[in-house]
Amino acid sequence: MKASEIREILKLTQKPEYISFAGGLPNPQSFPTEAVKEIVSDLLDKDSERVMQYGTTEGYEPLRSEVGKWAREMGMMDIHRGNIMITHGSQQALDIISKVFINRGDPVIVGAPTYLGALSVWKVTGAHFEEVEVDATGLDMDSLDETISRLKHADIHPKIIYVVPNFQNPAGVTMSEKRRKQVVDIANEHDCLVLEDDPYGQIRFKGTPIKPVKAFDDTGRVIYMSTFSKLLAPGFRVAWMAADARMTKKFVKCKQYTDLCTNSFGQAITYEYIARGHMKSHIPKIISLYERKCGLLMKALDEKMPDDFSWTRPEGGMFSWMTLPKDFNSVDLLKTSLKHKVAFVTGTAFYANPLNGVNKARLNFTHPADERIPEGVDRLVDSIAEYRRGLNKE
Amino acid sequence: MKASEIREILKLTQKPEYISFAGGLPNPQSFPTEAVKEIVSDLLDKDSERVMQYGTTEGYEPLRSEVGKWAREMGMMDIHRGNIMITHGSQQALDIISKVFINRGDPVIVGAPTYLGALSVWKVTGAHFEEVEVDATGLDMDSLDETISRLKHADIHPKIIYVVPNFQNPAGVTMSEKRRKQVVDIANEHDCLVLEDDPYGQIRFKGTPIKPVKAFDDTGRVIYMSTFSKLLAPGFRVAWMAADARMTKKFVKCKQYTDLCTNSFGQAITYEYIARGHMKSHIPKIISLYERKCGLLMKALDEKMPDDFSWTRPEGGMFSWMTLPKDFNSVDLLKTSLKHKVAFVTGTAFYANPLNGVNKARLNFTHPADERIPEGVDRLVDSIAEYRRGLNKE
Repeated sequence: MKASEIREILKLTQKPEYISFAGGLPNPQSFPTEAVKEIVSDLLDKDSERVMQYGTTEGYEPLRSEVGKWAREMGMMDIHRGNIMITHGSQQALDIISKVFINRGDPVIVGAPTYLGALSVWKVTGAHFEEVEVDATGLDMDSLDETISRLKHADIHPKIIYVVPNFQNPAGVTMSEKRRKQVVDIANEHDCLVLEDDPYGQIRFKGTPIKPVKAFDDTGRVIYMSTFSKLLAPGFRVAWMAADARMTKKFVKCKQYTDLCTNSFGQAITYEYIARGHMKSHIPKIISLYERKCGLLMKALDEKMPDDFSWTRPEGGMFSWMTLPKDFNSVDLLKTSLKHKVAFVTGTAFYANPLNGVNKARLNFTHPADERIPEGVDRLVDSIAEYRRGLNKE
Repeated sequence: MKASEIREILKLTQKPEYISFAGGLPNPQSFPTEAVKEIVSDLLDKDSERVMQYGTTEGYEPLRSEVGKWAREMGMMDIHRGNIMITHGSQQALDIISKVFINRGDPVIVGAPTYLGALSVWKVTGAHFEEVEVDATGLDMDSLDETISRLKHADIHPKIIYVVPNFQNPAGVTMSEKRRKQVVDIANEHDCLVLEDDPYGQIRFKGTPIKPVKAFDDTGRVIYMSTFSKLLAPGFRVAWMAADARMTKKFVKCKQYTDLCTNSFGQAITYEYIARGHMKSHIPKIISLYERKCGLLMKALDEKMPDDFSWTRPEGGMFSWMTLPKDFNSVDLLKTSLKHKVAFVTGTAFYANPLNGVNKARLNFTHPADERIPEGVDRLVDSIAEYRRGLNKE
């Protein structure tokens, strides 16, 4: 199942008769419309010439400074405006990384599973993926070390280790602090880059926050990326990267020929949203909304799902990751589920080697309405029963 | 002089003490702030969930339909929603073309001169540029035919012919209807694609409009691209491509891994701006503003410039193209000009082979305030005098 096929399913399941655990959409209830209305009106009254004009490629300066401050508060060392580039969504950051660092055949280390958007852009570039197992606390460090050693033995030097440390998409798991330090040590030892993709880090509803991997980086080899899509609204397409200043200059050159600059209007709204203090007061509201929804999904799954299914219990983010019985194929189950008007994303989408995900499924809990969550699980249970009857017949 | 150096100059010349003929910025006087204010307020009142959410990769459906209608009005045959993709600025369309069609070493035919943003993205891809002379009515067709024949003789098949038919950036010249037909014939004969980049076509202040190259295309080999940056505002980053439907599907797949989707907010504003009829009543205002500014530049150049300088008299768009005396080097002249606090872009930036542009300069007339235009030409004249004294000393 390719990214484009998933896109087609997502389109289909936008129809109201479907209950979709498939997308990765924030809930529109979390959009701070009133604050945005006030900000936009002020911007157009006082600063319309600037917010409607081209901006600089690196991004709106005050926003970059504000983001730098935020990065320092998260524990990243010595991050200032010159380390920050604004991107048109995090997907663009992945594209730029690809253009700047990855040539055809270059080895890239990814989790098994990992974020499908990273796989799809680097696949086109012709990267050679090395999969490292993801367990309950993230990328397995022994496997990582083993993989790199094996590659080096064959005279292959991996360029990038890609990690999604918080509430990973798709597995919902969080990398322990110990492992965050270890991945930096391993990258230092083997002279690799680490790409830390952290769209959900702020959305933690259980447990203790852990510093980003980049907080343990004192040699400038960790590139951190995050987005405002999940904290403000995705429709503005404003995301950011924090990296070594010389590296950031390369990213800026690359972004220049990629799209000149990120939309000024969205950047100005995002800056004002942070500067006026809305962001810090708004995040707890998102957290409590998603905590409730995650709870509803967990409750319904606990009560209703057959015993031979298991799933992760995320402490934040947007996804739970389900393991199907060994004889299930999630691509076929999805076909049955679509007949029952319920959708998820098959595990196959999240592996460099899709076969590894045949009995996995990703469930999103942030977008469906509260009352639709148990109903969706009912439909899933019905699909599973129908699918199992088919299996037994064979 | 690289694109990144130009960017640095543009930054410098944003300081108020400089008069800049260098940028390619629309004049903020042309931004329809009041209409945008009304639209944004309505959108946030009635449709906030949609305009703040992710959109589809191909772009907002009603906008694509509206753009298709517009394309048909311009004379393009059989162009509908399925032929239209919205991009995050025209630069992104160039990047996507590069990803979909251009591999390292692929021959691409460009004008001499041509738009620098196309050169910079395709240079990184490793395209092999073949330059064809641009004269007073665009790309020279005999040279084009000769170039392709020469390549084919060496068993090299050029993939794309890139043209900027209206008020070309940088040369300000417009391709005749005869040549527009010819380029399609040549492309048909040699089985190449034509990429028609038309950011300024609507901004014609003299002469008769000519149908786009794509209007003469009945085999789907012309890809047309345009933007709302010059008709509404660049800060929303909304541009579009019209192409064969199967080709459009490829572009959509490519855009998906490039940045998922263009910002929904900017697209919604752009759609409403067209649908409410503002666009058609607004364009004449932009035209009269730029006609006046172009007239001011022409008058000042006519009155003040030394006899051994010449320049194009554009019928629209944003640029005039200046030819310096043979012994002048525009890169050195720019250094002198910057001391006099006036800027332009050196011709070298607009050629696949920069040396071809050593005695050329691009002047933008849309952005400077009216009274700054003659003053800027005075400063240019002073710089030329100083530069000439230096030449005579040598």
